[in-house]
Amino acid sequence: MKTKLGPQRLILPFPTVLVVTGNMEKANIVTIAWISMLSGSPLTLGISVGQKSFTGEKIKKNKDFTVNIATVEIMDETDFCGITSGRNTDKFEISGLTKIPSSYIQSPIIKECPINFECKLVEANIVGRTNHFIGEILETHVDTEKIEDANNKGSISIEAINPLIYFSGVREYRKLGDKAGDAYKTGKKLIG
Amino acid sequence: MKTKLGPQRLILPFPTVLVVTGNMEKANIVTIAWISMLSGSPLTLGISVGQKSFTGEKIKKNKDFTVNIATVEIMDETDFCGITSGRNTDKFEISGLTKIPSSYIQSPIIKECPINFECKLVEANIVGRTNHFIGEILETHVDTEKIEDANNKGSISIEAINPLIYFSGVREYRKLGDKAGDAYKTGKKLIG
Repeated sequence: MKTKLGPQRLILPFPTVLVVTGNMEKANIVTIAWISMLSGSPLTLGISVGQKSFTGEKIKKNKDFTVNIATVEIMDETDFCGITSGRNTDKFEISGLTKIPSSYIQSPIIKECPINFECKLVEANIVGRTNHFIGEILETHVDTEKIEDANNKGSISIEAINPLIYFSGVREYRKLGDKAGDAYKTGKKLIG
Repeated sequence: MKTKLGPQRLILPFPTVLVVTGNMEKANIVTIAWISMLSGSPLTLGISVGQKSFTGEKIKKNKDFTVNIATVEIMDETDFCGITSGRNTDKFEISGLTKIPSSYIQSPIIKECPINFECKLVEANIVGRTNHFIGEILETHVDTEKIEDANNKGSISIEAINPLIYFSGVREYRKLGDKAGDAYKTGKKLIG
């Protein structure tokens, strides 16, 4: 039996990421879960941030941003960056998170985040009351020691990354659980 | 130390959802992880599906779709729906998943998925080589027994939902792990 709840926000596990805007002198961080891949060629992602947010202003001005994966180790810092505004808070200073320069853009990446994406703004839209920024991924940085096989740069240990998963609706952060199966494989048993 | 990998797909935990298009006579299912909330008012989400996909054609024609949360229990069926095409396969028939009618739209929901969203298409865009469909959530269905407190319809047990988390890059399905903390709370200790 199903119960109808009316329109609800997606009750789903989402990634938690820190979006950085600005430059090495002055930069801001915001925490979001509203992020998705949009295209594989070129590699493009979308992020949603409030129309009146400080981050929205900075992205429109500077035309770039970085996406940095949040981990369980920096959960408090991550949550802090989501409940404060960069208009009146230097979030790098208070959180203790460390800026390091990007290779291609002004906005820095965060050292404490094991994976970082440099993004160039390619399109800015408004959906409802929210900015939707489309960015092309220009570069990916990964903590070197989290690459399992130096000859295979894609062999990144998820356990070592220890990503923070955000569950909307119940507003909980969750850790990664056990492996359930291999994607693109486990369904083959249903193909006759 | 960081290693540069060049542009990479987001190595992040993503939700796994089944998108249904069509009607009670003939419907199709596709599995995606490229989904995000786009706006809270009205409640709007975005899904990305290949420009040549069967699902893309059906959404453009029928102007609606449903989003159904995949669970660990239906992992094989979920993966199957992601590696086959509805052009030559009746995925409902082969997977054994069950269609039930939506309240407001033609596309059915899936009984075996504990949470279902009915969406009306509000905008269709192309990003790179991929369709980006923006849908407004008209209705949410939840398995009645997964609501913990009948007087509080938002009290949904995540453990009972048992969502399937997709990890791109390594192409793994993961289970939900332990609670790490409360969002919008745990960061308050950093506010002076």
